[in-house]
Amino acid sequence: MIKGRVENLRNVMKKQNICGYIIPSSDYHQSEYVGDYFKTREFMSGFTGSAGTLVVTQDEVGLWTDGRYFIQAENELKDSGITLFKAGEEGVPTVEEYIIENMPKDGKLGFDGKVISAKEGESLVKKLDFKNISIEYSKDLAEEIWEDRTTLPDKKAFLLGTEYTGASYSEKLARVRKVMKEKNATTHILTTLDDIAWLFNIRGGDIKSNPVVLSYAVLKLDEVYLFVDENKLNDEIKNELNKENTIIKPYDEVYEFVKNLKADEVVLIDPAKVNYAVYNNIPKNIRKIEEANPTVLFKSIKNEVELQNIRNSHIKDGVAFTKFMYWVKNNVCKEEITELSATKKLEEFRREQDKFIEPSFGTIAAYKEHAAMMHYSASEESNYKLEPEHLFLVDSGGQYLDGTTDITRTLALGPISENIQSDFTNVVRGMIRLSMAKFLYGCRGYNLDILARGPLWDTGIDYKCGTGHGIGFVLNVHESPNGFRWRVVPERDDSCILEEGMVTTNEPGVYQVGSHGIRIENEIVTRKAEKNEYGQFMDFEVITFAPIDLDAINPQIMLPNEKEYLNNYHKQVYDNIAPFLNEEEREWLKEYTREI
Amino acid sequence: MIKGRVENLRNVMKKQNICGYIIPSSDYHQSEYVGDYFKTREFMSGFTGSAGTLVVTQDEVGLWTDGRYFIQAENELKDSGITLFKAGEEGVPTVEEYIIENMPKDGKLGFDGKVISAKEGESLVKKLDFKNISIEYSKDLAEEIWEDRTTLPDKKAFLLGTEYTGASYSEKLARVRKVMKEKNATTHILTTLDDIAWLFNIRGGDIKSNPVVLSYAVLKLDEVYLFVDENKLNDEIKNELNKENTIIKPYDEVYEFVKNLKADEVVLIDPAKVNYAVYNNIPKNIRKIEEANPTVLFKSIKNEVELQNIRNSHIKDGVAFTKFMYWVKNNVCKEEITELSATKKLEEFRREQDKFIEPSFGTIAAYKEHAAMMHYSASEESNYKLEPEHLFLVDSGGQYLDGTTDITRTLALGPISENIQSDFTNVVRGMIRLSMAKFLYGCRGYNLDILARGPLWDTGIDYKCGTGHGIGFVLNVHESPNGFRWRVVPERDDSCILEEGMVTTNEPGVYQVGSHGIRIENEIVTRKAEKNEYGQFMDFEVITFAPIDLDAINPQIMLPNEKEYLNNYHKQVYDNIAPFLNEEEREWLKEYTREI
Repeated sequence: MIKGRVENLRNVMKKQNICGYIIPSSDYHQSEYVGDYFKTREFMSGFTGSAGTLVVTQDEVGLWTDGRYFIQAENELKDSGITLFKAGEEGVPTVEEYIIENMPKDGKLGFDGKVISAKEGESLVKKLDFKNISIEYSKDLAEEIWEDRTTLPDKKAFLLGTEYTGASYSEKLARVRKVMKEKNATTHILTTLDDIAWLFNIRGGDIKSNPVVLSYAVLKLDEVYLFVDENKLNDEIKNELNKENTIIKPYDEVYEFVKNLKADEVVLIDPAKVNYAVYNNIPKNIRKIEEANPTVLFKSIKNEVELQNIRNSHIKDGVAFTKFMYWVKNNVCKEEITELSATKKLEEFRREQDKFIEPSFGTIAAYKEHAAMMHYSASEESNYKLEPEHLFLVDSGGQYLDGTTDITRTLALGPISENIQSDFTNVVRGMIRLSMAKFLYGCRGYNLDILARGPLWDTGIDYKCGTGHGIGFVLNVHESPNGFRWRVVPERDDSCILEEGMVTTNEPGVYQVGSHGIRIENEIVTRKAEKNEYGQFMDFEVITFAPIDLDAINPQIMLPNEKEYLNNYHKQVYDNIAPFLNEEEREWLKEYTREI
Repeated sequence: MIKGRVENLRNVMKKQNICGYIIPSSDYHQSEYVGDYFKTREFMSGFTGSAGTLVVTQDEVGLWTDGRYFIQAENELKDSGITLFKAGEEGVPTVEEYIIENMPKDGKLGFDGKVISAKEGESLVKKLDFKNISIEYSKDLAEEIWEDRTTLPDKKAFLLGTEYTGASYSEKLARVRKVMKEKNATTHILTTLDDIAWLFNIRGGDIKSNPVVLSYAVLKLDEVYLFVDENKLNDEIKNELNKENTIIKPYDEVYEFVKNLKADEVVLIDPAKVNYAVYNNIPKNIRKIEEANPTVLFKSIKNEVELQNIRNSHIKDGVAFTKFMYWVKNNVCKEEITELSATKKLEEFRREQDKFIEPSFGTIAAYKEHAAMMHYSASEESNYKLEPEHLFLVDSGGQYLDGTTDITRTLALGPISENIQSDFTNVVRGMIRLSMAKFLYGCRGYNLDILARGPLWDTGIDYKCGTGHGIGFVLNVHESPNGFRWRVVPERDDSCILEEGMVTTNEPGVYQVGSHGIRIENEIVTRKAEKNEYGQFMDFEVITFAPIDLDAINPQIMLPNEKEYLNNYHKQVYDNIAPFLNEEEREWLKEYTREI
């Protein structure tokens, strides 16, 4: 099937003299997760991971993905004839390097300009200059061969009130315009869906788990243009938009709109965030200020109202997870539980909670060696039945009207080996050390990452991903610009200074292919500690509450301060969660939050 | 006196219509430490620290220096009328910002182009463009008013044989030329003295404590030009130079020489390392490749012969320091010891060691609150008598024919308060944690710095400097590009990937103004640990051996693994040092390296 699709694409390419064609994972908004309409890369390759780029030439088809997906990609690409390029591994060329190497002189390179960022596109064009390569970016070649492609989504949007957001659209717009004026910009083009949702206080259902609305926005100093399917907007939203002279235009009209910007405009635009087509449609003589969208930092620093809501959503989420944990650990011997049925049960517990909307991402419920795949997704074929032994990793989260959550716990369903117990304990120790960090203002994730990784590095183990990511407020579960990662990866944009009010996950892990996977994940909020002659100190508030499975911990390899921290954390878990449990669950929680 | 000099300079400036004049700390080679001839900034300001920039206008004189020197500068600038600008503090403009703000439109800015780096000069010129500022860089205005200025040094140079360096001039030249060819460069201009000393295997005495030879070098693919006072070179050196078609030219002829480079040359040059005059004398039509000198990385990665020599020099240095420590702790009650007499005694112990040349920097022997000044230098006026109480910080090192050392110990001369004991213990804990680090290849100093700083940050204390610096081989005690520092400071150039064979200091500290100062410093060598599916792990070998004063440690606030590490380190100290001590010293060392 895949081979046939590739052949069809190659035929289309041949007709148009295109030697190489790039299909990334993005939609028109550089989203990480995308609606079905945009899953061209999955359609063409069969690889279902959230990150990956396909490059098709007449001689080879290559798929690039990162460490999270190596095992999954190997499985899914089997028999497809597609070569897997393990991005970041020694000796593996980047997509760009591969294209520069493999494009013939004077050839034509193709991609859909709406799904490649302006930055990537511009970089490629510049670097291919010496080979005299021409670019065809105005066509989506998949359109011609993807017969049963779905239509664009049409989910209704809703207004998120200031009781949740803590700031109105008008207040937020004023903040953005202040930055525009400081930079002497007259126009700001915003195309990232979470930035738009944050600014307008709108949420929707156009992407599963990411409550955004497909849209573009062009902000001027006296008016605002919102490009969106008007049918999605209710009166409450329209009323709010009207307060600020906001003109609604059809979704796809932005491409023509930017062509007509006037020569004296100064456009604030982030080439890493807008697509190549939007960027290149702006008349060449218009001055651009190429900087990050001001909304990125504003959005990542949660205000007090948001934080209070987030804390609240986490208590509910902790209750749901604790009930689930009790249920799994006590019923694995009594009834048939599988990865899929456990996933369903966990969602049921979440649905019982107030203001629940939907899961914040596809639950990873991975038993035994499945857990070694960081982003495993159980299917009917892969679905394992749980047994009273080994480890069961569950990474899940919820979208609530008052917050977005992301939690991972790994449960011992029965006896585990000493070796696995050591790995588990060292993961917990790393998570604890990062949680305990106190640091001077100005530190970035790369300064702190070794705290989480240290206990594993000491034993010669690493995990091939960051330690944590920023998380949105009733928005995307992965949010820039904060994170924990020891290497600076510019395209990840997660190495900013850790500001007060940023919410970040803390999730070290162990992934032993074919054996076991362990991850423990809490969310932490950066807050201010004391300020003195040395500067402003910062530390973290932990907001995730659920037991860390003591059945899997070896207290003997923990340092005294780590044990003390864990005991104190478990006390907080009990205090926060117990009031919402039934008698049996509460008794159990008492036992599973005991001092060690 | 200072006020008079400033007035004289202002008069010279007025005659030449110069509104602002910059005097940095450098010599013609961007050296950190400079010979007396180059101490213009000290002559003009009275500030004797190693780092600082003076800016003179008709209205104000400002001196910029960093956290190491704030207290010292405040003292030395008293009554001078000079404003101290604390670089790096909140709200303090940089030199560049100050000049941009304060230069009048259409004014003329002056500096000696030989003592400002091309990078700084070019940046200033570009940023001042909007004010239409002209630059006068061909004159050293101090020349006219500094009547008793000394002459340039004329110390003899010597050849450091391959039994020390592990690689001949010819071998090193071939490595540099290989990089030149890879980059298509035909000429490489090298002006940093330690790079030149490394490449030619020459050492000298032109800068106190930095055994370099004032010189410039221009490398072509078939010949080499060395600009140096020929009288300094002995036959052994000339013989070595002859092997590689090396042409010796007078020291100052380089400025005319580069004017005559041919149009088809391609020059590899680092604007951060060459001075503004050399850079601007290169004809404008010549292509420049602006990258780091290949020698910087080559020099920092010590080869096996160098490492074996370094280890050996450290044993000798440890013996000298241990004898000194025994002497101070046992004689402070019996005879009069002062900061200056202790410094002299320590140098005597070093002079007894084989192959000792000179101290590797001015010893910091700082008693009581003097130790809160990171780079305190005792004078006849400040000289404290030691008493059997409080802490005595000694930071010192030696240049040996087989290595350069840098060690700090802080000694308790009697009872100390519980508070000071805690500070001392946390400094030791930080130093231990960094020493114990195991990490993946690719980590930089900023990934590891928090290990050293963590125990202090936990108690709300910081030190306003890096945790450690690279160190040369029979060369400068501060050497790029390795170091430990949590912030990236581009002009420090100390955030490179930690490569196998790099030698770096590990020296956290506490500096409580008016009370006490603590610093413990070992040198550590980056080495390879295991390589597995996760990558190449790295760790450190400690090469400094001298007791860490157990009288000042509170074992109760140490974690078990930290105590274990300290006990093991002390065992190594005893094993390495004891054989070279007399009976009494050995007995004492046994006691001071006991398990805690």
